[in-house]
Amino acid sequence: MTGRATGAPTLWCEHAWLPDGPAAAVAIEISDGRISSVRPGAARAGTVLDGITVPGFVNAHSHAFHRALRGHPAGHATSFWSWRDDMYRVADRLDPDSYRRLATAVYAEMALAGYTSVTEFHYLHHGRGGHPYDDPNAMGHALVDAAAAAGIRLTLLDTCYLAGGIGEPLSPVQRRFADAHADAWAERLDPLLKIDDGDRVRLGAAVHSVRAVPEAELPIVAEWAAGGPLHVHLSEQTAENEACLAAYGRTPTAVLDYAGVLGPDTVAVHATHLTGDDVARLAASGTRVCLCPTTERDLGDGIGPASQLHEAGVGLCLGSDSQAVVDPFEEARGAEMHERLAHRVRQRFSPAQLLSMATGSTAGLAVGAPADLVTVALDSVRTAGIAPVGVLHAAGAADVTDVLVGGRWVVRERVHRHVERPAAALAAEITALREATCRP
Amino acid sequence: MTGRATGAPTLWCEHAWLPDGPAAAVAIEISDGRISSVRPGAARAGTVLDGITVPGFVNAHSHAFHRALRGHPAGHATSFWSWRDDMYRVADRLDPDSYRRLATAVYAEMALAGYTSVTEFHYLHHGRGGHPYDDPNAMGHALVDAAAAAGIRLTLLDTCYLAGGIGEPLSPVQRRFADAHADAWAERLDPLLKIDDGDRVRLGAAVHSVRAVPEAELPIVAEWAAGGPLHVHLSEQTAENEACLAAYGRTPTAVLDYAGVLGPDTVAVHATHLTGDDVARLAASGTRVCLCPTTERDLGDGIGPASQLHEAGVGLCLGSDSQAVVDPFEEARGAEMHERLAHRVRQRFSPAQLLSMATGSTAGLAVGAPADLVTVALDSVRTAGIAPVGVLHAAGAADVTDVLVGGRWVVRERVHRHVERPAAALAAEITALREATCRP
Repeated sequence: MTGRATGAPTLWCEHAWLPDGPAAAVAIEISDGRISSVRPGAARAGTVLDGITVPGFVNAHSHAFHRALRGHPAGHATSFWSWRDDMYRVADRLDPDSYRRLATAVYAEMALAGYTSVTEFHYLHHGRGGHPYDDPNAMGHALVDAAAAAGIRLTLLDTCYLAGGIGEPLSPVQRRFADAHADAWAERLDPLLKIDDGDRVRLGAAVHSVRAVPEAELPIVAEWAAGGPLHVHLSEQTAENEACLAAYGRTPTAVLDYAGVLGPDTVAVHATHLTGDDVARLAASGTRVCLCPTTERDLGDGIGPASQLHEAGVGLCLGSDSQAVVDPFEEARGAEMHERLAHRVRQRFSPAQLLSMATGSTAGLAVGAPADLVTVALDSVRTAGIAPVGVLHAAGAADVTDVLVGGRWVVRERVHRHVERPAAALAAEITALREATCRP
Repeated sequence: MTGRATGAPTLWCEHAWLPDGPAAAVAIEISDGRISSVRPGAARAGTVLDGITVPGFVNAHSHAFHRALRGHPAGHATSFWSWRDDMYRVADRLDPDSYRRLATAVYAEMALAGYTSVTEFHYLHHGRGGHPYDDPNAMGHALVDAAAAAGIRLTLLDTCYLAGGIGEPLSPVQRRFADAHADAWAERLDPLLKIDDGDRVRLGAAVHSVRAVPEAELPIVAEWAAGGPLHVHLSEQTAENEACLAAYGRTPTAVLDYAGVLGPDTVAVHATHLTGDDVARLAASGTRVCLCPTTERDLGDGIGPASQLHEAGVGLCLGSDSQAVVDPFEEARGAEMHERLAHRVRQRFSPAQLLSMATGSTAGLAVGAPADLVTVALDSVRTAGIAPVGVLHAAGAADVTDVLVGGRWVVRERVHRHVERPAAALAAEITALREATCRP
């Protein structure tokens, strides 16, 4: 390893995905956490990374605690809504300590899969019965601590959640998610601004959905969020659309548009069941859409209009959402494969477009970008014989060998450097949580 | 390891999936390649298999050489038909030696993923230009040798292929697939019967499709196959249905039915685009259907009527087909997830039903069944915290640790016991093949 003035390594990548596509024998230098030099065709020297090195994957939509629901199919969750009941039972048992431990393990799983950044759509704010913790942002701080421990960037979206449905009261579990009104939500949130360091941790806002935030309260959230990230669950299930049309006479997208929620800093999550007018509103406002393909199939949401959105100029990103799967390759493949299933054509999205969706705005490693790098083995049984440009089509999370976040190693040779035995931690936390939920 | 009279091991499984579902601490004894005893709640002794042990996965539809197309998305294969052109270019370069080497590596990849049996839909019979090899079954023997080397059971389906489309001549590459007429196919096939040992290697027949076998020749194939396995590609693409209706005035299913191709030993592969009458014909005849979910999404085939078939009483099995993915867990999830995407409900198939599809008729490990066992880690980041019954929903091929076929170890602690470095072999064979295809 060749030392630099900053102590950061010079990397030599067998292949690296640059803005023009994959290149061979690429030397990458890092300075102050950013890429300072990229040289293809370089002599093999420094820290050697065999395989292909790509920009870090960005997980644009996560509910960390949903990980506890993976692989428990024995219940009666035959619809999105009955699945949600299961999810509420898990939510009801978490406290700041157990959530910090669980989220640390979940974020470590994400890092091992190649995610270098996670956007957490956080709505589990208060104690049981809705009573605030001594620090009313204790759960948010638990997530900040978890991301730091796992070495992953965090955008914490503190979510406004006020109602149990349009015109419906909160259920007992939902009281843990809720503030009294949007102003109270904003007041609680202000002290949390100090977590935003402009680099590793960002604070943003979310509207849970038009189900959970009444139309009249939406502008308050939009105003608080102005200039920073604002996310919202949008039209994941047709029942939301039906209730919204019945109550407001407009689709959820139109309600959000009229209330000033849409815009270039806004990300609409799912956007599965849209009208042509909805697509036009998202495009005209510069709103981006976060697809969560592995969740949308797990929950039976249906196939959204991904290529229609793309053709209208709507930017797309990807999220692991319910953690049914934590695998950015599978998420990228899902975006493409669901299009193929729905429209019976291939290659709706090019490999470069899929990489762009999966890694944020950058479509390759470039000077000036944060040194968030992921190396993927090209010598596993899954990836042997592929073209480097086919890595998103063939690899899986198990093929990620090395992960660097802001120039610091988080994963080396498939081992997390900071979280000891993440799988054992997941098992311990989930088992404890699920046993608690089974008690009378 | 406790020795038995036969030398086979006594296994102790942390969890094992029995006919009633997963059980803990299961001792399994093996005699003459079959399970001779299953005792849940046994003391930990013998060869310990941590995780969950399930019946071996059955890959009911494979084209081994398609593995060379995985992860090469740079071409212009924007439809099933242009993808087929790419596939033909690869097919055109194989000979018995290179095919044996490639298929050995592909079958080793399958074994590592937990497949203990593969049904190869084999149509690459002859040399370039359609000239028979000295042994006209040399390519079939290459596949038999490959399966033996990889330690996996093989059902070799020798495929009848006569035309380039309904009423269309063969293209130059297709001449390698073709016999002059069905009687010539049967005549070539007879000497191959000697490979069938009633255990590790079975011989069966296939009709490539109604595209490739004229209606008048179908009864000859059906007659040859009588009493043994007979597979046929069915209605994978709507273009096949359209051409068939135009030529014969009947759907492909009806054409096969009238010709005597359907029946309890017949498996229709894909069956994606069916009428209600087609479903009824498949059910009435006892025909089973092989879904290939990861291929059907990769090739943009669309979502077939899986639950409609199941409700009509049609048995379902699963195949990796094009090898875009070699992962029986992903295949089982695909069967369920495509249903969820199409119908917006969850749990169309129970975990036991998915296991049954993925492993053949057995829905769990039982006395008398072949000792084909697969152990899946429950302590990876993917499987930590799940219920054993959720293994198909959460695990992947990378979680398979041990594989036993007919009581013999094929994979131990993630290493193939008989094929050295399968990934390197895949890379070498595929690289050579693809370089050859680029030559003028």
